Amino acid sequence: MKEHPKIIDRILEGIQPHQSFCIIGHVRPDGDCIGSQMALALALRSEGKQVVCWNDDTVPRKLRFLDPDGLMTRPHSGHSFDCVIATDAASLERVGTIAKHIGQRKLFINIDHHASNTRYADLNWIAAREPSTGELIYRLLRVAKWPITPPIADCLFTAVSTDTGSFQYPTTRPGTYHVAGELVQRGANLERICDEVYQSYPLARVRLLKHVYNQFRLTHDNQIAWFWLKKRDFTRAGADTSDAEGLIDHIREMEPVVVACVLEELEPELTRISLRSKDSRVNVNHIAAQFGGGGHSAASGARIAGRPLAVQRRVVAAIKKAIDAAKL
Amino acid sequence: MKEHPKIIDRILEGIQPHQSFCIIGHVRPDGDCIGSQMALALALRSEGKQVVCWNDDTVPRKLRFLDPDGLMTRPHSGHSFDCVIATDAASLERVGTIAKHIGQRKLFINIDHHASNTRYADLNWIAAREPSTGELIYRLLRVAKWPITPPIADCLFTAVSTDTGSFQYPTTRPGTYHVAGELVQRGANLERICDEVYQSYPLARVRLLKHVYNQFRLTHDNQIAWFWLKKRDFTRAGADTSDAEGLIDHIREMEPVVVACVLEELEPELTRISLRSKDSRVNVNHIAAQFGGGGHSAASGARIAGRPLAVQRRVVAAIKKAIDAAKL
Repeated sequence: MKEHPKIIDRILEGIQPHQSFCIIGHVRPDGDCIGSQMALALALRSEGKQVVCWNDDTVPRKLRFLDPDGLMTRPHSGHSFDCVIATDAASLERVGTIAKHIGQRKLFINIDHHASNTRYADLNWIAAREPSTGELIYRLLRVAKWPITPPIADCLFTAVSTDTGSFQYPTTRPGTYHVAGELVQRGANLERICDEVYQSYPLARVRLLKHVYNQFRLTHDNQIAWFWLKKRDFTRAGADTSDAEGLIDHIREMEPVVVACVLEELEPELTRISLRSKDSRVNVNHIAAQFGGGGHSAASGARIAGRPLAVQRRVVAAIKKAIDAAKL
Repeated sequence: MKEHPKIIDRILEGIQPHQSFCIIGHVRPDGDCIGSQMALALALRSEGKQVVCWNDDTVPRKLRFLDPDGLMTRPHSGHSFDCVIATDAASLERVGTIAKHIGQRKLFINIDHHASNTRYADLNWIAAREPSTGELIYRLLRVAKWPITPPIADCLFTAVSTDTGSFQYPTTRPGTYHVAGELVQRGANLERICDEVYQSYPLARVRLLKHVYNQFRLTHDNQIAWFWLKKRDFTRAGADTSDAEGLIDHIREMEPVVVACVLEELEPELTRISLRSKDSRVNVNHIAAQFGGGGHSAASGARIAGRPLAVQRRVVAAIKKAIDAAKL
């Protein structure tokens, strides 16, 4: 194994003397968030630590198989911990209401792969070149020499696989494939994981997909695709926001599309946008930053106040400008 | 690198003295077939050999980027070769009309990963545990110490990735991920490959998908999903039948569905059905056999004469019966 950064040693030294841990993730947790939290929780439990996992939102249905014993709970007040560890959360705002309940702690650790991470903890391991936080947890466990059991391998494989779009995103590095191979070698159940994560969509999501295919719009020579998700669309589909994860890929994969955008109604005058770029010359992190958001060059997001149609016009105009500037 | 089978040495000894090569693949070539053929052809060219590639069918649009110089041609008579190498072709029937044009050769080599391979050549390397032929070509090149250039890495990554369903099929082995990592290290252009192969659906296919999401039907406690593809649906979408490849997966991946079925109009009174089962207790090969068709337990098909609505009723009734008999 290649030389590891000193921050790993400092994190392990920080963890060692403590007994009670709370592992926190971000709102609307995805496979990398849940997989990283659960893998770290299982490893710390094996080391005799007391561990709870807190998330503001419930675990998406397709990821529940990773938590058969219900380690994941909602945050509540009146608790104190020796150590709080945030995984995959780029800022304190991203952990939601949890931030209010973790004041009583001796040490706060932040492990993440987002370049935009605000380094809000006592110890911050931010590895922006890594495609997933799961890969960081894998390296932490390897350096610590904590056993990677099959359930831990399931969690880490899910994290690595989902945050690389099944090993397709250009951010996927040679080492990522080697980690995936190691995890399968150590017992990750590929059949179960891929069936649960990629091949079991609830009918509510199917109804959202029908909405997407009927409502998506193309503009700028079909280089920009977008659709709206209004609250009423979720209600009609009997869906919740976790069913919307990955819908953007369906417009992203249309051949002429360069930038895909989903506009989601949070409040009548508050819109959440998600952006995806298929061309390295168009950096959607820069576009999101214009609206106070952030992320990566190929995937980013922001929350924008204002009337929906005005927001849509501003966002689509910003995307057009970025595409024109790139001279594709 | 682990010890390699003796057949690799015999293949390399067979190749060494010869000058002119023809690399052949199977009808309706997929990513593993084209990627394996092209990688081997590029490597042999680098070694100073004369190489042509023959396929009965043209290269699918999404794979054409692998052959910018047009090495792939259709078979024609009146040629003789020192050596013919078949890749990914389980039998001589699978290479189509090519079989008629390769009689003039000194050596015939067969490299494949299908367990059903009929060992039809002089030297046969059949590795049924490997998930792709591309992985065999990678090993051959490594043992031969032929350089794996970025274009060769592109071809082999495409082969390995497509035949494992982007590293998701349960047949994917730890070594497969390591090979993928090596190929990315050696310059496989992940962004280009995944964009071309997985993220470039023509708009005609998108319009077919819209049709699918609007027209699919569920019955039998949502355990059966089906949709029709009529000739007019293709016309309206500006699509051809190749755009319909994989549409069935969209109803297969609905969580409650056990059997997915597509009914495609071939003639006003001739219907082609495709069946997929997600439960090993429901064998769709048996269902297809009732209508004179066949296939595998999880994927099968048939052609059925009769009025469309009558065909649909008979097929859905047969699926219901099979599900009830399985007592899920």
